[in-house]
Amino acid sequence: MRVGILNIGTELLFGQILNSNAAFLSKELNNLGFDVLYHHIVGDNSIRIKAAINMLLFDCDIIVTTGGLGPTQDDITKELVCEIMEDELVINPEAYEALINIYKKSNKNMPENNLKQAYLPKRAIPFINDAGTAPGFVLENKGKYIISIPGPPREMTRMFENSVKPYLMDHVDGHIYYKVIRTFGIGESSLEMKLINLIDKQTDPTIATYAKEGECSLRITSKKDSKDEAKIAVDSLINDVTELIGEYIYSYEDENFNKVVFNNLRSRNLGLSSAESCTGGLFAKTITDIPGSSEVFSRGIVTYSNDAKISELGINKDTLDKFGAVSEEIAKEMVLGLYNKTKSDVCISVTGIAGPGGETEGKPVGLVYMGIQYKGLVNVKKIKIRDVNRIWNRDFTVLNMLKLIYDTIM
Amino acid sequence: MRVGILNIGTELLFGQILNSNAAFLSKELNNLGFDVLYHHIVGDNSIRIKAAINMLLFDCDIIVTTGGLGPTQDDITKELVCEIMEDELVINPEAYEALINIYKKSNKNMPENNLKQAYLPKRAIPFINDAGTAPGFVLENKGKYIISIPGPPREMTRMFENSVKPYLMDHVDGHIYYKVIRTFGIGESSLEMKLINLIDKQTDPTIATYAKEGECSLRITSKKDSKDEAKIAVDSLINDVTELIGEYIYSYEDENFNKVVFNNLRSRNLGLSSAESCTGGLFAKTITDIPGSSEVFSRGIVTYSNDAKISELGINKDTLDKFGAVSEEIAKEMVLGLYNKTKSDVCISVTGIAGPGGETEGKPVGLVYMGIQYKGLVNVKKIKIRDVNRIWNRDFTVLNMLKLIYDTIM
Repeated sequence: MRVGILNIGTELLFGQILNSNAAFLSKELNNLGFDVLYHHIVGDNSIRIKAAINMLLFDCDIIVTTGGLGPTQDDITKELVCEIMEDELVINPEAYEALINIYKKSNKNMPENNLKQAYLPKRAIPFINDAGTAPGFVLENKGKYIISIPGPPREMTRMFENSVKPYLMDHVDGHIYYKVIRTFGIGESSLEMKLINLIDKQTDPTIATYAKEGECSLRITSKKDSKDEAKIAVDSLINDVTELIGEYIYSYEDENFNKVVFNNLRSRNLGLSSAESCTGGLFAKTITDIPGSSEVFSRGIVTYSNDAKISELGINKDTLDKFGAVSEEIAKEMVLGLYNKTKSDVCISVTGIAGPGGETEGKPVGLVYMGIQYKGLVNVKKIKIRDVNRIWNRDFTVLNMLKLIYDTIM
Repeated sequence: MRVGILNIGTELLFGQILNSNAAFLSKELNNLGFDVLYHHIVGDNSIRIKAAINMLLFDCDIIVTTGGLGPTQDDITKELVCEIMEDELVINPEAYEALINIYKKSNKNMPENNLKQAYLPKRAIPFINDAGTAPGFVLENKGKYIISIPGPPREMTRMFENSVKPYLMDHVDGHIYYKVIRTFGIGESSLEMKLINLIDKQTDPTIATYAKEGECSLRITSKKDSKDEAKIAVDSLINDVTELIGEYIYSYEDENFNKVVFNNLRSRNLGLSSAESCTGGLFAKTITDIPGSSEVFSRGIVTYSNDAKISELGINKDTLDKFGAVSEEIAKEMVLGLYNKTKSDVCISVTGIAGPGGETEGKPVGLVYMGIQYKGLVNVKKIKIRDVNRIWNRDFTVLNMLKLIYDTIM
């Protein structure tokens, strides 16, 4: 079934906020097997809203609108949907009761204009809002559906999960099940090449690849008569995928890499310390993004200058002079110095050229050395990152550090 | 003038990526005084692209499209724009030369299908792409304009700044001049209250406030017959604004706070070191985001555990036991310990509770102590951040650290 998404709200046209509603709805609807054909944004203007809905209805089976359901004068979505779908607004008993209860609970008097929110199209099925006051609804006419839900992301996502998704699951032929697998260390096109036989013959389950910030995800989706059948089909294909590209997979549960590495360190009761040069604290920041990271991470040293490398990590000045700060030897001395002072189970070091400046003969931007110490063994890995820009270069270096830890301890 | 934005690309309909292009363009176009009425996204489908452009042309003076300008078969924007605007594709000499030069520089042979990118509508003005291979263009017909630029954000934003913006500035009635002032340490509503007399009587220049990640910006815009007149009007209002809220302003040039602090340290020839607990490396990361930050920043110590605080910074175990890690005393000992080992001109320390866990009696999530050492003086500042979530709490703590440095050295 073909879907068009219409986000209503003048504030979305100023560019101060990203339209995360459209991205969320699109992702969810695609996952459910719908074809999302349009994202449209219009302001709170009745002529443009009507024109947009009519245009979408022409080409789509389902229109999902967000916004314009509140109590104020410029909230006009319901009125326009009624006009287009040949219905009229009446007080909806379920919506009315929900609204009254909200004010009862908070011991406040309901402002009079709020009663407007209890009105819904006569033939609509209401969706109750458990995070705000404006209810949503679905209205069907001549085989076309308009689903209208609130604009604030927290209300929208909850209503989608609680009401819209279950409603839609009943309006799709069959049941959908999917899993997202995360990989690192392989590009999207190489991934596709390795999986070409599985991808070429796919009908159900289907495999879709997504590249994102140096990583690549696979979504494996099946639609069957029952959820169990769909799950069996997905799990079976995941086995085939794992045989072909298992070495690159780090999560079968769509988790972030820092979380996966943290969980693996914690479950093994391993402590972690870091010594960073080019990433300047980004590795420590990435690990400590995780609540409770103090269970694993004790210490990070950012030795940005050569003096700092010498005094914090005991780097040999001769080594620095002979090989330069960005070298296998310095990565090794950094991780040894770090281990000497921290005795952490896992110690990792990094030195490289993040750019845009700092390039020297034979040492281009994107050259990185990572050192790791685990169980008395020290290993240094050299990588050459494709130079995109300083931000990407640093982000991608940290992903490589996570991968090195992951590969070392697993 | 009325503008519609059309982002073309099936990948935008999967919901894996946020449509940052529409937000960027909207913000820039609003800043230039245009009315942005629509954001539309359609996939790489000729029928839907044409329908969308035609619909937008009906209601707008200018259509800005992104995407679909590359060398592959599904890149069809130019062909469709030609159909609609009654033009034909021909090799554009300027675009051809730029394309040839890209391949010359990289010593690579140009794949044959890439020649497609040198074709532009015959009457178009080309926009050269300095970050990729696909050129953009503007094409006028019967008083309507279509501006087509590439989809990858890095190429799109550069082309907008270098070519589209200057082009548009010449096609507006009058000349626009604006400045963006950045403030920190005051909320948006308090800012508006302080400026209420200026805001209430505004016609030209106008003042707009924008809250963003704990900061607040002011945009002051004037449209006059000449750029000089507009600039004089803006500068005069900036003087009035400075009198009222000068203490909160850190940039008149729309620069990031880390850049402003870095520039001020560098121009004063001051070195910087940091000792972080709750921010876990985020402060060091934020400073080293800046290319060339090694001129100022030498060293960051992330002492996440108590042991690390003791061994790296010489914190007194008795102080820890008596006052706890999140206390004025520890912030002070951290910055003294840091100064003892680094002798940096400016030393800053931070300890706090980033959440969601870690709250204890009298020490809520969001409690933060920052220590600073400058010219032999040590100062500790206590703040209580409104607990939003871990990410925001840490980001906002780092902004407060930057503010503390800024206020100390200025």
